[in-house]
Amino acid sequence: MDKIEILGLVAAALTTASFVPQVYKTWKEKSTKDISLTMYTVLFIGVVLWLIYGLNIQSLPVIFANTVTGILLLLMLAMKLKYK
Amino acid sequence: MDKIEILGLVAAALTTASFVPQVYKTWKEKSTKDISLTMYTVLFIGVVLWLIYGLNIQSLPVIFANTVTGILLLLMLAMKLKYK
Repeated sequence: MDKIEILGLVAAALTTASFVPQVYKTWKEKSTKDISLTMYTVLFIGVVLWLIYGLNIQSLPVIFANTVTGILLLLMLAMKLKYK
Repeated sequence: MDKIEILGLVAAALTTASFVPQVYKTWKEKSTKDISLTMYTVLFIGVVLWLIYGLNIQSLPVIFANTVTGILLLLMLAMKLKYK
């Protein structure tokens, strides 16, 4: 694995992991007033398309990163609808 | 350009555009209490790494999507620090 590939994997890991602190904060504080439902809806649709793209080009990092991100975004959407 | 490539471009456009409604909402309401600073910081670092990756593999969609997303995330970070 060359340096550029590792850079891509670190980038994928960071952009995916970034949603964990937001999920944790929202779960703890049960407040979503400042969170945009439109952002999370559009982002979720985009991530699902990335996942389909990853499956088509058979890229494991793209598949893995977008599956995990998709789950985290679903949690955010559920909390956004539950905690107004 | 084949169908899979178009799918990837639509996915990139959606995940980038998704941050526009959040920036607009935050700019309008001037409230960021529910927004995770850690999420936007880690996501910004990840997007910068994606940009460097895109420059290295000379992928215009990766470069373009992550440049725009990076700017939107910087706006969110600035507002998060300004509107506590």
